[in-house]
Amino acid sequence: MDIAIPLFDRITALDAIGPYEVLSRLPGYRVRFVAVKAGPYKTDKQLTLIADVPLSAVPHPEILMVPGGFGTRELMTPNPLLDWIKAAHETTQWTTSVCTGSLLLGAAGLLKGLEATTHWSAMDDLAKLGAKPVETRVVVQGKIVTAAGVSSGIDMALMLAAKIAGDDVAQAIQLGIEYDPQPPFNAGSPSKAPAHILEGLRARMRERTAASR
Amino acid sequence: MDIAIPLFDRITALDAIGPYEVLSRLPGYRVRFVAVKAGPYKTDKQLTLIADVPLSAVPHPEILMVPGGFGTRELMTPNPLLDWIKAAHETTQWTTSVCTGSLLLGAAGLLKGLEATTHWSAMDDLAKLGAKPVETRVVVQGKIVTAAGVSSGIDMALMLAAKIAGDDVAQAIQLGIEYDPQPPFNAGSPSKAPAHILEGLRARMRERTAASR
Repeated sequence: MDIAIPLFDRITALDAIGPYEVLSRLPGYRVRFVAVKAGPYKTDKQLTLIADVPLSAVPHPEILMVPGGFGTRELMTPNPLLDWIKAAHETTQWTTSVCTGSLLLGAAGLLKGLEATTHWSAMDDLAKLGAKPVETRVVVQGKIVTAAGVSSGIDMALMLAAKIAGDDVAQAIQLGIEYDPQPPFNAGSPSKAPAHILEGLRARMRERTAASR
Repeated sequence: MDIAIPLFDRITALDAIGPYEVLSRLPGYRVRFVAVKAGPYKTDKQLTLIADVPLSAVPHPEILMVPGGFGTRELMTPNPLLDWIKAAHETTQWTTSVCTGSLLLGAAGLLKGLEATTHWSAMDDLAKLGAKPVETRVVVQGKIVTAAGVSSGIDMALMLAAKIAGDDVAQAIQLGIEYDPQPPFNAGSPSKAPAHILEGLRARMRERTAASR
């Protein structure tokens, strides 16, 4: 069974690789990195990721997992990736996203009237696509599962692993990746970060998002 | 300033990409993925990662970050990667590892008599290399910083970001990647996982490690 992770330019690497590291350990599944064209895609920093096959090679993945990144902002109008997401969703068992990957689900018309989440800085953009933004780490609406920013994909994928293969398998995966998080600070969400950190980062992200449109 | 992350066949993707996602956001630094030869390296699952340049192109990185994976077991005897690690360490500001990456630091002779950590399943192997294994998520010994299994590299990199650039920068990075972990289970370390999960996984990992030697 196939787990498809679409790549595009300027994705955020951890959005894809967090869930990949969890879901690639699910017995019976294999992860396919797909894109409009097979080949290399530059993330938003130095890393390059490789799409093994074109979108057309995986029309009916059992699990769709859409990562985010600044590159999503260039994909908001009709394009082949959105067409593929919309068509793939018709036959998936689970349609999922991390971070601003949910903006692509929204732009494909999949989130109308549904609760969904995204990176904390993109809640307004999500609302414009017809979703009801919720500031929760993972939001489940039927077979559509959206996760918050970047690192939240690890939590989402473990929850999904449990739904698919049971709690024992999910816990073995958690132990395998030694996911016993001990962040040195408690600044990982807007409600927990110091105000000056939040405002500084919000301003920098606004600039960068505007530059991506 | 350069952050060098060496790649090799059968590395664990998240070992590298967790710290990459944090450290690539450090102002003034750039991440270089290096390897014996530039080009594609297959991780322990489906993903392929690309080394941008050969080891010789980055002889003096300010930060060295060595990821782990089953592929480390084939690199325990003298080889060009260990030679490069040993030489690079002489001029680094920080020499770091995630998961069984510490076995490579050990095989390069850098951990003799030092406390260090690794994936929970590899503590015995670490002891054989002259280190004093400690079951702690991140261990700092002078400029050498070792982290536990796979996902621990995110915590390690945030700690390192704070040491290098201060608490405000580290907290802004944590907020940027929305690292507010909420794992659905509390099974991420040997002391927390249910006994039957631990024993089952330990047996499977022993088999796989033996097959890697």
